[in-house]
Amino acid sequence: MGTITKALEMLNFFSREKPEIGLGEFVRLTGRDKATVHRHLGELEENGFLEQLPVSRAYRLGPAILRLAAVRETTHPARRLLRPIVSQLADDIGELVHVSLLQGAQLSPVFHADPKCYGTQVHFDVAEMLPLHATSSGQAVLAFAAPELCERVLGGPLPRYTDETTTDRESLLAMVERARETGIGKAERTFDEEVTSESIALFDAAGQPVGALAVIVPAVRASEEKWSQIRPLLIDAARAATHSLGGVLPPSHPLK
Amino acid sequence: MGTITKALEMLNFFSREKPEIGLGEFVRLTGRDKATVHRHLGELEENGFLEQLPVSRAYRLGPAILRLAAVRETTHPARRLLRPIVSQLADDIGELVHVSLLQGAQLSPVFHADPKCYGTQVHFDVAEMLPLHATSSGQAVLAFAAPELCERVLGGPLPRYTDETTTDRESLLAMVERARETGIGKAERTFDEEVTSESIALFDAAGQPVGALAVIVPAVRASEEKWSQIRPLLIDAARAATHSLGGVLPPSHPLK
Repeated sequence: MGTITKALEMLNFFSREKPEIGLGEFVRLTGRDKATVHRHLGELEENGFLEQLPVSRAYRLGPAILRLAAVRETTHPARRLLRPIVSQLADDIGELVHVSLLQGAQLSPVFHADPKCYGTQVHFDVAEMLPLHATSSGQAVLAFAAPELCERVLGGPLPRYTDETTTDRESLLAMVERARETGIGKAERTFDEEVTSESIALFDAAGQPVGALAVIVPAVRASEEKWSQIRPLLIDAARAATHSLGGVLPPSHPLK
Repeated sequence: MGTITKALEMLNFFSREKPEIGLGEFVRLTGRDKATVHRHLGELEENGFLEQLPVSRAYRLGPAILRLAAVRETTHPARRLLRPIVSQLADDIGELVHVSLLQGAQLSPVFHADPKCYGTQVHFDVAEMLPLHATSSGQAVLAFAAPELCERVLGGPLPRYTDETTTDRESLLAMVERARETGIGKAERTFDEEVTSESIALFDAAGQPVGALAVIVPAVRASEEKWSQIRPLLIDAARAATHSLGGVLPPSHPLK
């Protein structure tokens, strides 16, 4: 692993539950020696990717990230364009909706909306990367991605998140094939045992998948009847989302 | 310069005017050899800080930045807290307002609002870091910062942005002293020759400056009368901004 990757991966330890991390904890989390970790933290801080808190000396994510996010949004405003679509769908169906963008062989959450209509809500962690093999969004993307991405996912580690996570090659290929036939990825308790979801890929101007729009429903209130009410609205919203990104569904897409 | 810094600084070349940068242009911009630049770009892309466009092969800022920005905002929502204050002030005074946060010895813009009431507007570049010695926000921050920061700025390079930029030590110290007496930093054509500004620092819970709230007025319509109308509203908004961050003005602050 390169030095740059080692440093950047340290940023991924931050989450809603862990907004501040000290030097000692970074040493434990990375398994690297203190001098190396300290040097990496120093460079990240110097460039504004971390900031050190005055009293505790712990680190949190720094202001450079906000600035760069604003630059990306100014020139490529996916988040701003998708926000109203995600919020409207969440309001219409009363369930959590999220959009994520492809980042290497994972999906990176960029926006979610939770109408909070029910007592049971899905706990959505914005910091958590979504694995392609265990999520409905992953299936929806793999179904229309270049074959190399599918091979990379199937050839890589396939962690088991719940008893329902599919980890063998043939079953995964069958799931991707089903998503290709329907245009919709489906996951039942495969990433979180209390959660079901359906997703549709979003596409760029070349018809390549760039991310996915997903509806997440707690398994306790998921039923085929409920999904059959949600699905037409999800399909309309996904078409609108691809359109707002300046993209087009590929010719082979069944919802085209 | 460390490898991590070399890689992270490549992200700073992106701006509203330059949303996509190719390998050849990165080689020119960095002055480093192609193999090194290519390796750095590869690591940044692999970690989602860049993404490569399918047709042009150029790079743009990647989705990991949006995800990390969302994590920071979830746990430390400066942008969300400051946005309504910045927008309200901009609406009230009809001029551009921005807030920036301290990042090392510079200020990093995080949010701005432009009511666009006039034919002449300030062109505000979200990608541009603000130097402490040449901006009103920098004066407002330096006036209440630890002496080490002031020494670091005065001891570092002091680029001249316009004919009005102050670059000698004594004059800069006098400007900072005036900002300490009034609580307000003032800049007339020192960073952009068509622009004037006034700023007030924002503080954390320990009374240390963390950033600044600034009003920017094109020099063509700036007058002392106009500033005397703006100033009371800027003072109220800066107090509200520090308060919303959970901060307090230091005991020595004249606006306390």
